[in-house]
Amino acid sequence: MLEPTIEVSLGEFTAAAASLAGLGPDFHRRGWVLGTSGNFSAVVDREPLRLAITSSGVDKAEVAEHHILQVDGEGRVLAGAGRPSAETLLHLAVVRLRGAGSVLHTHSVWSNILSDEFAVDGGLTIEGYEMLKGLKGVSTHEHSEWLPIIDNSQDMTLLAKSIEEALTQQPRAHGFLLRRHGLYTWGQDIAEAKRHVEIFEFLLEVLGRTHCATRL
Amino acid sequence: MLEPTIEVSLGEFTAAAASLAGLGPDFHRRGWVLGTSGNFSAVVDREPLRLAITSSGVDKAEVAEHHILQVDGEGRVLAGAGRPSAETLLHLAVVRLRGAGSVLHTHSVWSNILSDEFAVDGGLTIEGYEMLKGLKGVSTHEHSEWLPIIDNSQDMTLLAKSIEEALTQQPRAHGFLLRRHGLYTWGQDIAEAKRHVEIFEFLLEVLGRTHCATRL
Amino acid sequence: MLEPTIEVSLGEFTAAAASLAGLGPDFHRRGWVLGTSGNFSAVVDREPLRLAITSSGVDKAEVAEHHILQVDGEGRVLAGAGRPSAETLLHLAVVRLRGAGSVLHTHSVWSNILSDEFAVDGGLTIEGYEMLKGLKGVSTHEHSEWLPIIDNSQDMTLLAKSIEEALTQQPRAHGFLLRRHGLYTWGQDIAEAKRHVEIFEFLLEVLGRTHCATRL
Amino acid sequence: MLEPTIEVSLGEFTAAAASLAGLGPDFHRRGWVLGTSGNFSAVVDREPLRLAITSSGVDKAEVAEHHILQVDGEGRVLAGAGRPSAETLLHLAVVRLRGAGSVLHTHSVWSNILSDEFAVDGGLTIEGYEMLKGLKGVSTHEHSEWLPIIDNSQDMTLLAKSIEEALTQQPRAHGFLLRRHGLYTWGQDIAEAKRHVEIFEFLLEVLGRTHCATRL
Repeated sequence: MLEPTIEVSLGEFTAAAASLAGLGPDFHRRGWVLGTSGNFSAVVDREPLRLAITSSGVDKAEVAEHHILQVDGEGRVLAGAGRPSAETLLHLAVVRLRGAGSVLHTHSVWSNILSDEFAVDGGLTIEGYEMLKGLKGVSTHEHSEWLPIIDNSQDMTLLAKSIEEALTQQPRAHGFLLRRHGLYTWGQDIAEAKRHVEIFEFLLEVLGRTHCATRL
Repeated sequence: MLEPTIEVSLGEFTAAAASLAGLGPDFHRRGWVLGTSGNFSAVVDREPLRLAITSSGVDKAEVAEHHILQVDGEGRVLAGAGRPSAETLLHLAVVRLRGAGSVLHTHSVWSNILSDEFAVDGGLTIEGYEMLKGLKGVSTHEHSEWLPIIDNSQDMTLLAKSIEEALTQQPRAHGFLLRRHGLYTWGQDIAEAKRHVEIFEFLLEVLGRTHCATRL
Repeated sequence: MLEPTIEVSLGEFTAAAASLAGLGPDFHRRGWVLGTSGNFSAVVDREPLRLAITSSGVDKAEVAEHHILQVDGEGRVLAGAGRPSAETLLHLAVVRLRGAGSVLHTHSVWSNILSDEFAVDGGLTIEGYEMLKGLKGVSTHEHSEWLPIIDNSQDMTLLAKSIEEALTQQPRAHGFLLRRHGLYTWGQDIAEAKRHVEIFEFLLEVLGRTHCATRL
Repeated sequence: MLEPTIEVSLGEFTAAAASLAGLGPDFHRRGWVLGTSGNFSAVVDREPLRLAITSSGVDKAEVAEHHILQVDGEGRVLAGAGRPSAETLLHLAVVRLRGAGSVLHTHSVWSNILSDEFAVDGGLTIEGYEMLKGLKGVSTHEHSEWLPIIDNSQDMTLLAKSIEEALTQQPRAHGFLLRRHGLYTWGQDIAEAKRHVEIFEFLLEVLGRTHCATRL
């Protein structure tokens, strides 16, 4: 599907594909991307926008470089075999709104539970934890992070719009939850986005277990 | 025990045996097949029916190709050393009723707990989770999956009959639980069956932990 | 310390040492032998009794063949460097009373919790689980397994006597718990003892999580 | 930044750096140092004091020898590239007060939960567990370990002073918790400090899960 007239960033793309594939085994082992769920992306060019993203339906325990596609700013495939994830539009929305260099999406047990329990509030607050300092630009545990929760939908255009609204209203949010679905977070590069995944998943587990104990 | 007049699909069998053995280490690590529990099968021929299946009593952390037997449609061993699992009849029942290409059976902590807790209802409903979309033919998180729970028994002929009844009554079910025993699920091939195991085990953990919190 | 007049089973010993050391990484990863806790043994000769056993204070993540000692029926070191575990007497008691070929001792979170909670009853019953069928000689999930709980002590002679009493009173028990300490189980060989560890640890987790939910 | 007039223990340092880096993968896998959290140190010389310590912001899953810095008794970098952890002053305080040869700091889910829940008491007691015997100098499960909890702060000089006070008041403590932050523990060498981490993390999980059940 690669048109000869379209300039594709193959060097950047190859490096990004290797790094994205490298996330698979650890995330799969932790139960964050079971059942072929989750998807990972990284910007390989800004002008015009080129995104490396995992293709749909891949077992993340075995994701390899040839499972990574290159898409343009509308989500059309420029290089690679396979279908892009239906959620490519959501990755593109985050890239545009946050200037992110990488967007990672995981489905964990705790994000499913908390996104459901706090859906009525439209989000949840995480504050007072040292681990928050690992989020980009946060310098103290006294930081208060609002993690928006957005209702899940199969209409990706609608969902992308909901995400745009939430991120516009919450310009300092480092991630968001889709209800009964999972976490989206991002970073300036893959390493930072991975760090944010680990931080949010850790804090969601802390909150989930604390919350249970507190309500007793 | 291989009769020269019986045509055995050795090429298909070898490939299936390698794939089935490959499931062992990850499933064992997750605690889904501890204590030599669980068994894995794949169809290697339809006419006549030939099934590759793990032999009884094998440590799934170390399962190798030589631990996989080939059996016929009555569960008689055609190739390989060792006894076939007593549950071979259950695998064969699922293959016939669902046209499955692979059947996987796991014993997890959460399937034991939930199969006991919801036994009185004869099953449990899983709905509203994005992860459900990974089940074959499901296209929205709004899907409602009924997971039948069948009383455990050591009479395999009786148990196979109970399973046939449950699957006939629930033609859209993608799996079932045996009470205080574990999960059965299947797919058109081993990869799809493995995906279904991961999805059900994930969702059972989500439900188990949510349920605990909700009942507080 | 090896006396030339004592006949040592070095061939058997070398094989047993390799197998015992091989248990370390997986048990450590699961959190069953953290902080150098736990110890593993196997009989290498019956007449006179010779036992291969892990030496004291070894990190089970890195246990190697040279960390395994050979001791006689009184727990005196015949071969190998290092101190034998203080609990060698307990292993010897189990070998004598059960004719076990291997004894394994683990410290897990769930065995600590349940041995404390049910201490007042002197043990706990596990019944109705398919996983019980993996215990030697058990052929149905309807089996009822009584797992004795023995008060912990630093007096190993006293503790060995308590264990002898408990095992004599419960001739069909496949294991026992030391209160706030951990599990002992055994088998005719290392593979069977390992299977019993996995089965008991699995069932203790199921009971612990069920029990929590039930008391809500 | 290495001044030629300062004598640096490069042999000791290289060995310590390799050992510290070796802790990363297992601690990361267990979720004790996610999101680049945690830091590890070891004394490489006493007179004058020289400490090997992980540099700031390193992914502990991939920590290598070149991520380990050598600092002096004021926390100034003598060798290695990168910034020292802001918490270097806390490591130095522990080294001075306890004569520790290694200090390890982890961020686990259970240390976050329990340090918050028991903050009002200024610490928590752990007693009656066999696992306590793995702490240096403890010879019976009847030992009572007081684990102080210190309020978290971004002012490292202040925090070092709070730690000095707590450790002076509790001369037998083997570790302490920073509230909603994590565990500090130490040992005469890296192996002993690692053993103490495993013991405390194990016992915090036991307490956290027991406590939950007890309060029901």
